[in-house]
Parts: sequence; structure tokens; C-alpha cells
Amino acid sequence: MCEANIFIVNPKTAEEDPGELFLEAVDRIIPEGENVWRLTSIFGEQKTLVGRIHSMKLVDHRILFERLDP
Amino acid sequence: MCEANIFIVNPKTAEEDPGELFLEAVDRIIPEGENVWRLTSIFGEQKTLVGRIHSMKLVDHRILFERLDP
Repeated sequence: MCEANIFIVNPKTAEEDPGELFLEAVDRIIPEGENVWRLTSIFGEQKTLVGRIHSMKLVDHRILFERLDP
Repeated sequence: MCEANIFIVNPKTAEEDPGELFLEAVDRIIPEGENVWRLTSIFGEQKTLVGRIHSMKLVDHRILFERLDP
């Protein structure tokens, strides 16, 4: 299965720090507004993330987001 | 391998129209600026896409973008 794990990273340390796991085994990612993302895992779990995409490495099953400053 | 195929869709017809294939077998997606994305396939092919993410269905290997009006 080709789901991905979603991590929150700090852009300043993303090279060395793998970040914090936000939701694993994500299938669907749908934007709900400016920098608001609705994530759904293959198990049906849903979470909303506010942030910006930092990078995706799909073969590694890794999608990284940065939180936005409030 | 868990790469994805990148399609350009029209948001008004995305439900019924699968869209236009932009790049297949994409591994890495990196934002290069506001609505500018650098895509790299598992074969090393690189393309730049200007647009907005419409939706991702990772288990289906499909990531859809909308082009932005110039």
C-alpha cells in the first residue's frame, strides 16, 4: 500500500531532525482552505493540519509539513 | 514502489474527468515558492509545476493539481 506518514518539521532543523509524527498511513490529503489540510488514513482516521508542505518523499512514505507561526 | 502520478485537473470537472498527466512516477515534490512545485520522478526526470494542490489519493498513486489563472 502506498500511504504516507505525515510529519511536522521545523524547517531550520529538517535536515537532521526527522520531525514529529502527526498521522500515519495517510491515503487522502485534501486542502480545505489556505494552509488547512484534511488528512484521512487508510484506517479512516481523520485529522486537520494547519501548515505548509515542506517536502514529500513518496518512495520513503514521508510527507513533511511545517507549522505556520500564529 | 510508492511513487505517484501527477495530473492537472479542472476543479469544475475533476469528479468526472481524470485530468491530464503531467509527470508519472514522481518520488519527490518540493515547493519552490508560492504555488511553484519542483517534481522529480523515480527516473530522475524533473519538471516544475505552477499550480495548487487539488487533492491527493496516495493509495491510488494520484496527486491532482489545478493550474492557476495567470
